[in-house]
Amino acid sequence: MTPDTSPAAPPRQRVLSGMRPTGALHLGHYHGALKNWVRLQSEFDCFFFVADWHAMTTHYQDHADIERNVYDMVVDWLAAGIDPEQATLFIQSRMPEHAELFTLLAMSTPLSWLERMPSYKDMLEKNREPATYGLLGYPLLQAADILIYKAAYVPVGEDQAPHVEVTREVARRFNHVYSPDRPILPEPQALLTETSRLTGLDGEKMSKSYGNTIAMRDAPEVVEQKIRRMPTDPQRMRRDDAGDPARCPVWPLHQLYSDADTQAWAAQGCRTAGIGCLDCKQPVIDAIKKEQEPWRERAEAYLSNPKQVHWIVEVGTERARAVARKTMREVRTAMGLAY
Amino acid sequence: MTPDTSPAAPPRQRVLSGMRPTGALHLGHYHGALKNWVRLQSEFDCFFFVADWHAMTTHYQDHADIERNVYDMVVDWLAAGIDPEQATLFIQSRMPEHAELFTLLAMSTPLSWLERMPSYKDMLEKNREPATYGLLGYPLLQAADILIYKAAYVPVGEDQAPHVEVTREVARRFNHVYSPDRPILPEPQALLTETSRLTGLDGEKMSKSYGNTIAMRDAPEVVEQKIRRMPTDPQRMRRDDAGDPARCPVWPLHQLYSDADTQAWAAQGCRTAGIGCLDCKQPVIDAIKKEQEPWRERAEAYLSNPKQVHWIVEVGTERARAVARKTMREVRTAMGLAY
Repeated sequence: MTPDTSPAAPPRQRVLSGMRPTGALHLGHYHGALKNWVRLQSEFDCFFFVADWHAMTTHYQDHADIERNVYDMVVDWLAAGIDPEQATLFIQSRMPEHAELFTLLAMSTPLSWLERMPSYKDMLEKNREPATYGLLGYPLLQAADILIYKAAYVPVGEDQAPHVEVTREVARRFNHVYSPDRPILPEPQALLTETSRLTGLDGEKMSKSYGNTIAMRDAPEVVEQKIRRMPTDPQRMRRDDAGDPARCPVWPLHQLYSDADTQAWAAQGCRTAGIGCLDCKQPVIDAIKKEQEPWRERAEAYLSNPKQVHWIVEVGTERARAVARKTMREVRTAMGLAY
Repeated sequence: MTPDTSPAAPPRQRVLSGMRPTGALHLGHYHGALKNWVRLQSEFDCFFFVADWHAMTTHYQDHADIERNVYDMVVDWLAAGIDPEQATLFIQSRMPEHAELFTLLAMSTPLSWLERMPSYKDMLEKNREPATYGLLGYPLLQAADILIYKAAYVPVGEDQAPHVEVTREVARRFNHVYSPDRPILPEPQALLTETSRLTGLDGEKMSKSYGNTIAMRDAPEVVEQKIRRMPTDPQRMRRDDAGDPARCPVWPLHQLYSDADTQAWAAQGCRTAGIGCLDCKQPVIDAIKKEQEPWRERAEAYLSNPKQVHWIVEVGTERARAVARKTMREVRTAMGLAY
């Protein structure tokens, strides 16, 4: 054997991201997060997890269908092109270590850091239910999710940036109190991603709770029907009324799915009443159907072999567990609890 | 073999109690809690645990000596007569399951239940440090400690009764939300015990932080010295001044340690200046030394074999873990998280 003289590749830095199990994902999830995950997985050591405990902070009474939601979502991840050979996929609730770190971090985290989170204030306003202790602690549980894997980066939209900031503060405080000479929990960086806020069928943000979504795995005929039924510029009542793309919910879909020529054709046709709304919609329908093709193929392969999906999650969970346990040994040692 | 026709003994009901690891215990701990534990262990299936996470809610910066404190305390438990064949002794921080249940219960526990706890308000007033998320959640972590073992009884002093009450509310809510037809977490009962608030060397409550304690394992000559130096009725300046037991810090020790005749002798001798203060103290010194004898003997046996103490904790922890894991399986199933 000749000695290996090639320089070792530097270990890839870790990225952590989670998603609540809301069931089958829609195009908003894909363009808002998943597309980015697929891009990141070759460059980073990606840990993607199902945030099922987090789902309970706001929907603690919907507990019937979580399991189906979890696996529907994982299938969509795989359908979108997440490669389980590259990324580590796992389930939060399978990791009591997250809860342990959350509990330990709670001891040194001032209440005020959590009370001032914009997301918390926002939830308080929206929810009619009384705030729970878990809801207040949501960003701290998220901090534990991130810190236990010593993630270098967390992909977030702008509204989530304060959560990464509090995670950094929590890590800094932990290191300062328990291990000032050798920081144990690295401070993660936000990986700001321009998230396309996809418009739904009614012109509002695409969201399951608004009932205005196109699912990643909607059948082609369902996609066709949904888009054909979309309202358009309300001032374009008849075929020969001129319209304005700025008022039309279909226009954002063109901006996402159509090339410059098609966009010009649609805008011009709308403003001059040169094309009808169904004409205008056709390229969008075609583009979405085309985008879905590889998803559907991959999903079918996985759905025909559900054991494989469970196995992928199983392997990912064990891989993540090894990392989490190692961190917890360091954390307990630093806190003087390693007996 | 003849068949066993005796009726099976009903399973003993479970009692749960914990103690923060404050190091070597003093007579206040013995008379306030341990004596009661020893009494309970033959009647109930007792689970006694070292509440080392709880210690961190208020002393999160003292992390150097926790391990020594933990084992000093366990030795004192054993010295006091806790029998590891009857009771299960374990360490909270070795049970991530407590943290998991704490995290899950957090999701359905209104913040207001915790904010209104008298102990929390009390702490806020006393502490100069900012309140932490963990401090607010203290009673919920305690609820998880209790509920995970489905304890029937929790021995508490009066000031702890609201904690058992909130534990009952937490259990009721969990059962109502997640398993209305078959309650999973039984509501524990408070086992109110008259705790003798032992007076310390200065007449204040005996407490390590006041530096007025007699340790369970203080050497006889130390006990002798500490009590001989105790102040007595300040109005009895000279040997022939008459005194009043009601003003004397030694008197509560007589009330605890002396029989009626000795008490009468001491009170009478004080009021008439018939005896000196050192005379008065001698029966108390003798009684404490006598009380300590079996503790010292047992402690010496354990200290000469520290591995045995670790082994006792190890066995207890595994026994407790089996119960905790079983409960967590039921909890996860009820919440729809058993995948």
